[in-house]
Amino acid sequence: MPKSVFSKFVSGELHCSKVYEDDEILAFLDQTPVSKGHTLVIPKKEIDHLDDCPEDLYVSLFKVVRKVSRQLQHTLKPLRVAIVVMGMEVPHAHIHLVPLYTGDELRMVKRDDHKTADTILDDLASTIFLPS
Amino acid sequence: MPKSVFSKFVSGELHCSKVYEDDEILAFLDQTPVSKGHTLVIPKKEIDHLDDCPEDLYVSLFKVVRKVSRQLQHTLKPLRVAIVVMGMEVPHAHIHLVPLYTGDELRMVKRDDHKTADTILDDLASTIFLPS
Repeated sequence: MPKSVFSKFVSGELHCSKVYEDDEILAFLDQTPVSKGHTLVIPKKEIDHLDDCPEDLYVSLFKVVRKVSRQLQHTLKPLRVAIVVMGMEVPHAHIHLVPLYTGDELRMVKRDDHKTADTILDDLASTIFLPS
Repeated sequence: MPKSVFSKFVSGELHCSKVYEDDEILAFLDQTPVSKGHTLVIPKKEIDHLDDCPEDLYVSLFKVVRKVSRQLQHTLKPLRVAIVVMGMEVPHAHIHLVPLYTGDELRMVKRDDHKTADTILDDLASTIFLPS
């Protein structure tokens, strides 16, 4: 199987600027950053989608996200640090941490600003609903 | 202290379309969705920023995110389910789950597509670096 570019960062075959590393997880600066301090957090194991990570690893990843996010906030003083997972790019699960200095770095494209009717949302929610 | 609109969803003072609920956490459909099934996951307690949540609650929130994301994937069959935390809107921590049907629903606005020099990134990484 061809290795992802992220696996080459993990193995050291390619250079990356590391921000955090433990046995399972690596965090490093994005090489084409959206903003100063834009960081990626990845499992060292090549797993395509975040949802395919076992729960233990998923929890470990977000503990690192929390830690690095607080560190970015502390050292770089952005307005906020955004978390983004899209899963449409490199086929190796990764979580973006994007310091927001203006708030314009990230956009969710709403189709319109109209409130959807409660009845429509209630119907949809009943098909999705998960018992606790 | 004035209650956030999300706290009014939690108390039942305002209606929302619930997707998941337990003692600490509520998930419900966004009323002005970016895409079909756009869901918000919140702590019931009114905490301004996600990073201010104690680690236990933070982990519980992301366990629910994982569960609801898989459920959205299963029931609505989008290409992927994105996770977004911006923290610039309602002052009550919330995590967006946005089903992506085209991939255009979400944009990170890169200032340019130029790779930043390794030396610049290495310097920055050394100021951010966290020991494991």
